[in-house]
Amino acid sequence: MSEALDVRPGEETVDIPQAGDAALHFIGAIRTPWRTRRDCPRRGDMIEGPVCRVEIAPLWRPALKGLAGRSHAQILYWMHEARRDLVVQTPNHTGRSAGTFSLRSPNRPNPIASSIVALVEVLPDALLVRGLDCLDGTPLIDVKPETCPFDQARPPQGGP
Amino acid sequence: MSEALDVRPGEETVDIPQAGDAALHFIGAIRTPWRTRRDCPRRGDMIEGPVCRVEIAPLWRPALKGLAGRSHAQILYWMHEARRDLVVQTPNHTGRSAGTFSLRSPNRPNPIASSIVALVEVLPDALLVRGLDCLDGTPLIDVKPETCPFDQARPPQGGP
Repeated sequence: MSEALDVRPGEETVDIPQAGDAALHFIGAIRTPWRTRRDCPRRGDMIEGPVCRVEIAPLWRPALKGLAGRSHAQILYWMHEARRDLVVQTPNHTGRSAGTFSLRSPNRPNPIASSIVALVEVLPDALLVRGLDCLDGTPLIDVKPETCPFDQARPPQGGP
Repeated sequence: MSEALDVRPGEETVDIPQAGDAALHFIGAIRTPWRTRRDCPRRGDMIEGPVCRVEIAPLWRPALKGLAGRSHAQILYWMHEARRDLVVQTPNHTGRSAGTFSLRSPNRPNPIASSIVALVEVLPDALLVRGLDCLDGTPLIDVKPETCPFDQARPPQGGP
């Protein structure tokens, strides 16, 4: 993305380090109906919305064993279109500047999103889920069983 | 860590890719009372336990603006002692093999942990929090305000 041109009033950037401290392996990709950031829904009611497909790369498919039958999962993914140099930013929908760590904006030093999703189905090569709001083609980083207490307040759902 | 020697019955490993797909920047470090993996408490009651210090590197401290006064935050951190090649593993406490994505084990392709913490205090250079269970010196990846619905069921806490 272009840098200085995109800085809004009230925003602050830093020079991010050239070298990385650790390397991520993308383990799959997320298929959603949204092709541009403008199309993506605002994170809100997390478990509603269309069914999305979380594709797991062949190497990692054996790691899905035991996930079927759970109602929810946590998905970590890489917001590949985000910028990483904003420490203070001014979200469009508020117009007020705030520190990056007080926002869930995609723009952050390590643009990793964490979403709780409802598991609709666990396939051999993919998960069908509800509750994502990301771009089509977003790289997948991790899948974890969900242990957030609010999970227990919901009735068990789907899973083959 | 050593590789083949540590594989338990029922576990499966893969050859992980040499090249990374994206680079993480560590943005700080977590100070806890636990010096070895054996010392770390089992994740359970997430908001109890001792106060830990989440140190923010100087470059990123302006990003804390606006976090004070919130009751909870989500912390992402890098489990630097984990192994990344286990797709099926046998946790000691169950003795049963299960896919990595059905477990919250530190051992996973991208060893990123996600914890909900209670914010005790927001300092200019650190957060004091309850609810972590990680090693002293664990690299910090991200801090986000917590939007999990269970947060709303708890009375507001601390914050300067």
